Amino acid sequence: MNSNALAHLYARRAREVKASAIREICKLIARPEIRSLAGGWPDPATFPVDAIREICTELLDERPDLVLQYGTSEGLPELRSALVDWLGRRDGIECSEDQLVVTSGSAQGMELAAKILIDEGDVVFVGLPTYFGGSGAAQTFGAELVGVPVDDHGIDPDRLEDALEATLAAGKRAKLIYVIPDFQNPTGTCLPLERRQRLIALANHHDLAIVEDSPYRDLCFSGEPPPPLKALDTEDRVIYLRSFSKIFCPGFRLAATVGPAEAVRRMVIARQFEDCCSNVFGQYVLSRFMQRDLLDRQIEKNRNHYKGKCDELLGAMSRHFPSSVRWNRPEGGFFVFVHLPGGLDGEDLLREAVERNVAYVAGAPFFVDGGGKNTLRLSFAQSDPETIEEAIAVLGRLIAERTGESA
Amino acid sequence: MNSNALAHLYARRAREVKASAIREICKLIARPEIRSLAGGWPDPATFPVDAIREICTELLDERPDLVLQYGTSEGLPELRSALVDWLGRRDGIECSEDQLVVTSGSAQGMELAAKILIDEGDVVFVGLPTYFGGSGAAQTFGAELVGVPVDDHGIDPDRLEDALEATLAAGKRAKLIYVIPDFQNPTGTCLPLERRQRLIALANHHDLAIVEDSPYRDLCFSGEPPPPLKALDTEDRVIYLRSFSKIFCPGFRLAATVGPAEAVRRMVIARQFEDCCSNVFGQYVLSRFMQRDLLDRQIEKNRNHYKGKCDELLGAMSRHFPSSVRWNRPEGGFFVFVHLPGGLDGEDLLREAVERNVAYVAGAPFFVDGGGKNTLRLSFAQSDPETIEEAIAVLGRLIAERTGESA
Repeated sequence: MNSNALAHLYARRAREVKASAIREICKLIARPEIRSLAGGWPDPATFPVDAIREICTELLDERPDLVLQYGTSEGLPELRSALVDWLGRRDGIECSEDQLVVTSGSAQGMELAAKILIDEGDVVFVGLPTYFGGSGAAQTFGAELVGVPVDDHGIDPDRLEDALEATLAAGKRAKLIYVIPDFQNPTGTCLPLERRQRLIALANHHDLAIVEDSPYRDLCFSGEPPPPLKALDTEDRVIYLRSFSKIFCPGFRLAATVGPAEAVRRMVIARQFEDCCSNVFGQYVLSRFMQRDLLDRQIEKNRNHYKGKCDELLGAMSRHFPSSVRWNRPEGGFFVFVHLPGGLDGEDLLREAVERNVAYVAGAPFFVDGGGKNTLRLSFAQSDPETIEEAIAVLGRLIAERTGESA
Repeated sequence: MNSNALAHLYARRAREVKASAIREICKLIARPEIRSLAGGWPDPATFPVDAIREICTELLDERPDLVLQYGTSEGLPELRSALVDWLGRRDGIECSEDQLVVTSGSAQGMELAAKILIDEGDVVFVGLPTYFGGSGAAQTFGAELVGVPVDDHGIDPDRLEDALEATLAAGKRAKLIYVIPDFQNPTGTCLPLERRQRLIALANHHDLAIVEDSPYRDLCFSGEPPPPLKALDTEDRVIYLRSFSKIFCPGFRLAATVGPAEAVRRMVIARQFEDCCSNVFGQYVLSRFMQRDLLDRQIEKNRNHYKGKCDELLGAMSRHFPSSVRWNRPEGGFFVFVHLPGGLDGEDLLREAVERNVAYVAGAPFFVDGGGKNTLRLSFAQSDPETIEEAIAVLGRLIAERTGESA
């Protein structure tokens, strides 16, 4: 049997493919001996297991005919209604149910946004660095990605304006800004209010769409982040992706995608030919979880949990990392972003780290311009204090060996 | 707020959109007074509720850290392994785990196949009629759909050969055959062995891929259908979609997609930017359900259940339909396909039927050539005997009124 008979039949978009660096590393970190600071997976200790078990049993007792059946492509009506209320109360976003679709994770929200917006060659602006799940979805549909530097306060609107003007001057079609304003993946930075307003103004002026991806918004370690871009959106140009993977659990694959009603309608139609609907059982579970006002309490719990872990990671880093290593102090989310000294390469270091049973994600895949070789992303989300301490000690020694410093 | 600021930014593929006729009709049939023969949704009476409840509780007691967490994009390893065994035993398909990905329904399997195979303008051959979920996914990626007549024994290989030659003569690129060999949606026809072999030979000769979509394969009312095309696939050209929505339940959105390892790898990478993974909780539930050997027993139960319903529908049709109406006797699946007499239009009739609280799906949307105006699809899957009897009586009277016959 010729096992590669279809190879020359692949579509152009599939001929050259690059797997998501994070999804690929998932296989690696599945080895039990690995002390991993790699995945952006939430800590299972936060999962509201008792409530979920109780709700599952109730749902299967009461309405198995509904919870195990197909559902509509828009999502479960009572869940959409609960989400509209919750987004209004929590995020200051006024939307109606026809502006919201329940998606199979934020990933699907981004994929659907790209599907309805991106033609071959359209330019999509992304952070340097940015989460490659978002940029990867745009690339699937032929987008040209243009990187915009991210500094300590997130994506820089001045540099975005420069990039926009260069794009227009080159006769290209600027279409979309993909931004993670709250505790960005991978840098952990949070965009200040005035930058959010600048992004909206730039989108209005240059006639662009914005996809705002906000999986970490609720995991703020003190106070609240500025309002979402969607709440500041004067011309209804923002498609807002609100994942429940980090504040509820990822196993049901649920997110809310909010946008202009007409765009949402097109996303709903596109998803009819994609997965028909998000898993109905999970939608009922989340809906009942919200009905019982458990979500906000859960968020409060998770916030404290991850703040503690972040402090542990930062403490270990200051104990074990040589002084030439630079990093930020995130105010939320899952990640600390590291700049290595003296031309050290994050991917080379990763290979050595894995030999010593330590894993992280190298920074380079987050840079669409090929930069970031000397960076890496550490996640404090999923590891216990001992693992964090040991892994950072190993990394510190590795870096010190390379730079000749003391760890 | 300008609620349509993004309208002129839509990608070409999203500018003209046609919703899936079935997904749209779902909203209609949600009205409780409707006696529906429309949806291809399974009968909730078949759902293995007790086993699922027990398994959910066990899983949440034993490994909440795993079952509520993210999973790999390929699917849960133990589920893939169980599926490989099951497909070998049940379908005679020899495959390894790297040739199988767990997808969020067969719909996603088709979408991923189209994503990796279809370039703008590629020709995809589909039945006349065919399920529009499959053809819709191909169209999303710019496929040109060419219809091939379906007779009482499914898609006609001679007519496919004619269509292939006409396509090549027109200088177009023939890429893919989309076929539902087992109790096809919407006609209920089953492709005989020799036609399956002809399709494989045609794909080999003309260098095409085949997507074999088989959600109804197990719901055979007597004996077994011929082997899947995938089991006859001499050059590894078939991508096989095996849904669990009709033999387990649809609420978890689970299917197996089997293909050449290299194509599966590309589909896995594409889905990393789509939904990351299928809902993990549901994958664990199905995996344990299969471990306990409950799936084959469940299939046997469902088979008898739907055979009984099919007999009820056929009985009601022969009692209430005027003699000028023609239909087939399916040997499996969910559907009976109806040809109306004397130029009656299935969509016009549907509007009148809905006024009398009866619903079905008009046949025309299943015909990519604009034909089939005088056809309709009746589903016996989800309705009880009284509903079937009443709905068919109403339809019979409606048709008789139009043709002047006695019902």
